[in-house]
Amino acid sequence: MTSIRFYFDFISPYAYVGWFSIRAIAERHGRALDPHPVLFAALLDAHGNKGPAEIPPKRRYTFVDAYRKAHDAGLGGITPPPSHPFNPLLALRVAGLDAAEDERRRVIDALFRAVWAGGGGVETPEAVRAILDGADVDGGDWVARAGAPTAKQALRARTDAALAAGVFGVPTAIADDELFWGVDGLGFLDRFLAGDDPLPGDLAVRWRDLPASATRPGSR
Amino acid sequence: MTSIRFYFDFISPYAYVGWFSIRAIAERHGRALDPHPVLFAALLDAHGNKGPAEIPPKRRYTFVDAYRKAHDAGLGGITPPPSHPFNPLLALRVAGLDAAEDERRRVIDALFRAVWAGGGGVETPEAVRAILDGADVDGGDWVARAGAPTAKQALRARTDAALAAGVFGVPTAIADDELFWGVDGLGFLDRFLAGDDPLPGDLAVRWRDLPASATRPGSR
Repeated sequence: MTSIRFYFDFISPYAYVGWFSIRAIAERHGRALDPHPVLFAALLDAHGNKGPAEIPPKRRYTFVDAYRKAHDAGLGGITPPPSHPFNPLLALRVAGLDAAEDERRRVIDALFRAVWAGGGGVETPEAVRAILDGADVDGGDWVARAGAPTAKQALRARTDAALAAGVFGVPTAIADDELFWGVDGLGFLDRFLAGDDPLPGDLAVRWRDLPASATRPGSR
Repeated sequence: MTSIRFYFDFISPYAYVGWFSIRAIAERHGRALDPHPVLFAALLDAHGNKGPAEIPPKRRYTFVDAYRKAHDAGLGGITPPPSHPFNPLLALRVAGLDAAEDERRRVIDALFRAVWAGGGGVETPEAVRAILDGADVDGGDWVARAGAPTAKQALRARTDAALAAGVFGVPTAIADDELFWGVDGLGFLDRFLAGDDPLPGDLAVRWRDLPASATRPGSR
């Protein structure tokens, strides 16, 4: 059976909730979990889209809604970092370094908690090094490796591959070529893997080709 | 007790699911329901945002995801209209005409079903007139009234008021000044009205003022 690909960026509180929810889903269905750190801002750029934090009323709602979803996922809510949005590049490059699976999971766990569970954020190399040391890996070594051109290139390549796979936001999970977006998409992923997807298979294909008869109305 | 304001546009399959879900919520909590037809495209314009149908991979996902949510809401899935996006202005103006509450509900029910339950759409005055006749109101009269400058002005005013209230998408429900967005927001609305909102009240205020330390990274 194929693995579940999980696309995320530490910038997203929904990705935080998704990361700590999808493991149980993968385990329940005997699937491996393949974490794909990607730069959410680059997905937005590619689609000419805005992130929730870039629309003032939606920014506030995103925190409120993510708190409720984190609560329901057993995480006790969220505690946002000192500032948001912030620059997630170093954390994303660290999360994509070559590593054993259990090491990588510990590292992603620790980085997500540093952002959304009151850990003080991941904006400086010093902060990231301390987080990594606390996750039982060599923080100095990981931060140094994350600064290398290969690590930067790996993040770009992973983000481009996500775009090519149809990823438009985070978190996204892809299993057996079916894409699920957001925290509420994970419940449908769970049912899809159990063979209980309510969606008839032919519809998804037909809707890709549905014609449009209007763009935005020119006159209100 | 104050009413629940429900903001919607026929263009959105999530608004269709929300419309047929929120009545039970309002009734359960003894609240009146106040339907606010608004032009989703104008909300997007005001925020410089894109709609899901304007981002190709998200467009396809929106239909798939809305089908699943409509199924879970007991609506048996969705059947998209002949083309999408389409021009919803006439249907929105009709839905905002002065009318008795039960008439307005029948009309909105019928227009939503014409769009998302295989009814052939609402793009032409002839189609809308036939839908209205089938909903036991005088279709010719309603279509004529919807073409008057006052009806056009009413839709603009309602959309502007929605923006002023912090509405950034559809469906949105507002009760006691708390805003809930999307189909998944309605479950939280239900708990909020039952006094079971997991969100501590002070957090919503604090997060409005959270500082940002980055816009989009300039370098990937």
